[in-house]
Amino acid sequence: MSEWMSVTDEEMKELCAGFGQKAEQLLQRLSGYGADAAGGVTRLLYSESWVDAQQALAERMENAGLTVSFDRSGNLYGRLEGTDSEAPAILTGSHIDTVTQGGRYDGAYGIAAALLAVSFLKERYGRPKRPVEIISLCEEEGSRFPKAYWGSGSITGAFREEDMEGLRDGAGIGFMDAMRAAGFGRADQKEAARSDFAAFIELHVEQGIVLENEALSVGIVDAIVGQRRFTFEVYGEANHAGTTPMLMRRDALAGAVEMIRQLRLSALQEGAPLVATVGRLELEPNTSNVIPGKVTFTVDVRHDRTDVLHGFCSAMLEQFSAIAAAQELRLCHSLWMDVEPAPMTAALSAETEAVCREYGIPYRRMVSGAGHDAQMFQRSCPTAMLFVPSHRGISHSPLEYTSPRDLGTGVFVLAQLLYSLCYTNAGTGTNKGAIL
Amino acid sequence: MSEWMSVTDEEMKELCAGFGQKAEQLLQRLSGYGADAAGGVTRLLYSESWVDAQQALAERMENAGLTVSFDRSGNLYGRLEGTDSEAPAILTGSHIDTVTQGGRYDGAYGIAAALLAVSFLKERYGRPKRPVEIISLCEEEGSRFPKAYWGSGSITGAFREEDMEGLRDGAGIGFMDAMRAAGFGRADQKEAARSDFAAFIELHVEQGIVLENEALSVGIVDAIVGQRRFTFEVYGEANHAGTTPMLMRRDALAGAVEMIRQLRLSALQEGAPLVATVGRLELEPNTSNVIPGKVTFTVDVRHDRTDVLHGFCSAMLEQFSAIAAAQELRLCHSLWMDVEPAPMTAALSAETEAVCREYGIPYRRMVSGAGHDAQMFQRSCPTAMLFVPSHRGISHSPLEYTSPRDLGTGVFVLAQLLYSLCYTNAGTGTNKGAIL
Repeated sequence: MSEWMSVTDEEMKELCAGFGQKAEQLLQRLSGYGADAAGGVTRLLYSESWVDAQQALAERMENAGLTVSFDRSGNLYGRLEGTDSEAPAILTGSHIDTVTQGGRYDGAYGIAAALLAVSFLKERYGRPKRPVEIISLCEEEGSRFPKAYWGSGSITGAFREEDMEGLRDGAGIGFMDAMRAAGFGRADQKEAARSDFAAFIELHVEQGIVLENEALSVGIVDAIVGQRRFTFEVYGEANHAGTTPMLMRRDALAGAVEMIRQLRLSALQEGAPLVATVGRLELEPNTSNVIPGKVTFTVDVRHDRTDVLHGFCSAMLEQFSAIAAAQELRLCHSLWMDVEPAPMTAALSAETEAVCREYGIPYRRMVSGAGHDAQMFQRSCPTAMLFVPSHRGISHSPLEYTSPRDLGTGVFVLAQLLYSLCYTNAGTGTNKGAIL
Repeated sequence: MSEWMSVTDEEMKELCAGFGQKAEQLLQRLSGYGADAAGGVTRLLYSESWVDAQQALAERMENAGLTVSFDRSGNLYGRLEGTDSEAPAILTGSHIDTVTQGGRYDGAYGIAAALLAVSFLKERYGRPKRPVEIISLCEEEGSRFPKAYWGSGSITGAFREEDMEGLRDGAGIGFMDAMRAAGFGRADQKEAARSDFAAFIELHVEQGIVLENEALSVGIVDAIVGQRRFTFEVYGEANHAGTTPMLMRRDALAGAVEMIRQLRLSALQEGAPLVATVGRLELEPNTSNVIPGKVTFTVDVRHDRTDVLHGFCSAMLEQFSAIAAAQELRLCHSLWMDVEPAPMTAALSAETEAVCREYGIPYRRMVSGAGHDAQMFQRSCPTAMLFVPSHRGISHSPLEYTSPRDLGTGVFVLAQLLYSLCYTNAGTGTNKGAIL
């Protein structure tokens, strides 16, 4: 049986309201760094606004009495030392970078929530048994350079600086030059890669419409889906739209349309959490009076189980081939993204569920259809991921929104989890290293 | 009963072979004017290569003993005077302009064939009773300026110079400036509009695969199809491809795919000669991991009967609306091209059919799915249109090809028709004006 902070219903209400208000204020403040003309936030890795945002967070952390440090990738840590300073720390946070014209919640919320939860625990309970660290990861979106998860990847050792060396941004600036210009990448700085942590907890906006549709406050992520992305090329014969009878056509679009329809039916039949999307499609020659000679389209398939994901994709390839053959079309495909599902740690999800039950917070278990830093940490340590609702599911947009109420509830659940892991015997146990 | 040139089977064989060889040579020669890097012909209205081609044809016509003239639009005539010079002339020919990177047969063949047929008739039979004129129309394709049928339109009075004044080509050059630079559009030049003609006969490559597929030499066009072109906009909701469950999507592409599929099924059910084509389609935002929020696509529907064309389009609009409603999508459409079917003159088609039967030439009655100058003349005078096969149906391409054998047969049939109309009592009759 876990131990929780003991709070009355009344007190919990007040706490959540306070957390919500403060989170909203902090996110409002952070959105000033990279505020763009579209009313959104554009805070790309190592940009001026990115430097300013990390600096502002570092000051906040210092003001909260935390030990602040940057590593040489530019990841920012705010550490609250434990009575057992040798015990591996619990890390919690998310990423500070945004997409171009993104919102103010994606990533930033996880950092703000961590800062509020840890500050509250420190004020109310003082020093934890085990160290806890707030982490503001330098990069997750892959928006400036064509590589995502640099922050979590460099900490967990999945990526090294050598992996980034050839990358250039849209303006032709090299990755290493951008990093150095922002004040990082120096030999005298602390290595990003580390192994002195016991768990990672990421709180994030859902970026989907499930929680809002079901009127829930918290989503407990059992797994981040795996995803496979394909590009298909369907070749028919471009021909005159007026002089080619219907029965003498080899219309690449007619074939593509059957494939896309079949894909949707198969996805509906498979059922949630499988999703399959054709997001990109192009015709050649793309002229109103010419029968399409070629159609190129992408397919994005996601599921949290490798066997289901692979089975679905194999069936899809067979169905598409059969449609192409029936219509005398030629079909090529390439698989250009193949990410395995990343299960979160069951014991931590159970712990989160217990908090929600104990405090009457409406929640559900779910999968994350989007990728997150948690999938990088999950390879190295026990990892938990929590969602709060996104209004209308909108994300990567200036219209991104989560109500202060939902923001506050998320912080409360995070604080309870951190309390359990860092302040109680249940979380720290007799084994100084492992938490589970 | 019509009167034909009397030729033996053996002689006809020789004639066709000779016509084919000469047509091939003449088209080869003409393709030098505007020969492009793609191996095709790009001869846009009033360009240098266009001027050269018209000039070369004018010389040929003069060498053949014809009276040569240009009108102020740049249409070129080669007239063989009749013994009754007051009788309205029979016009035959086609257009000298091409699409960008077009072939050497589209348009040019009709002019070359007319030149060969009239030269042959003049040499063998001398002066006709009724004047016959070869016409090299200045423009049909609409490739340089966004308006097609300027040649036939200016002769028949459908278009006037005022209608063209605002037009600019891709380089920003105004229509009138281009016309003047080529030496036309001057007040002292002969007006294009005229009414002193009794019929128009156009021989053209099919630009389709029907004749080749059925191993026929000649197509007798009963009508040029009417066509309606629409643009549809399907609005759904752009959303995250990973976090939006299949059942919570409003996928604009899913709707468009059902519409396009339904359109094809309806077209197949209606049967030939109806054709329906989606040639252009674009997604927004067109990104592999975003559910399409908007799809724009064109529909091109053609049929030779107005009632069928309109009925089909009405049913399509109803079906599309029902699909949009069922998927909670919003649908807009615009009709931006609405051309009525243009029936050819039945008596001339019957005359052509009689020639084919008499000389054992494999033929079929058919509709033209493409637009031609004949549809402009058809409003003003009796009009006939004849096709010869296009290899693999390819047109508007450097790969356009018609065998010398088929070219020659076309010239032979044209010569017989002209003979009947211009040299015999059956064609010229007692009524000096009307041919029918």
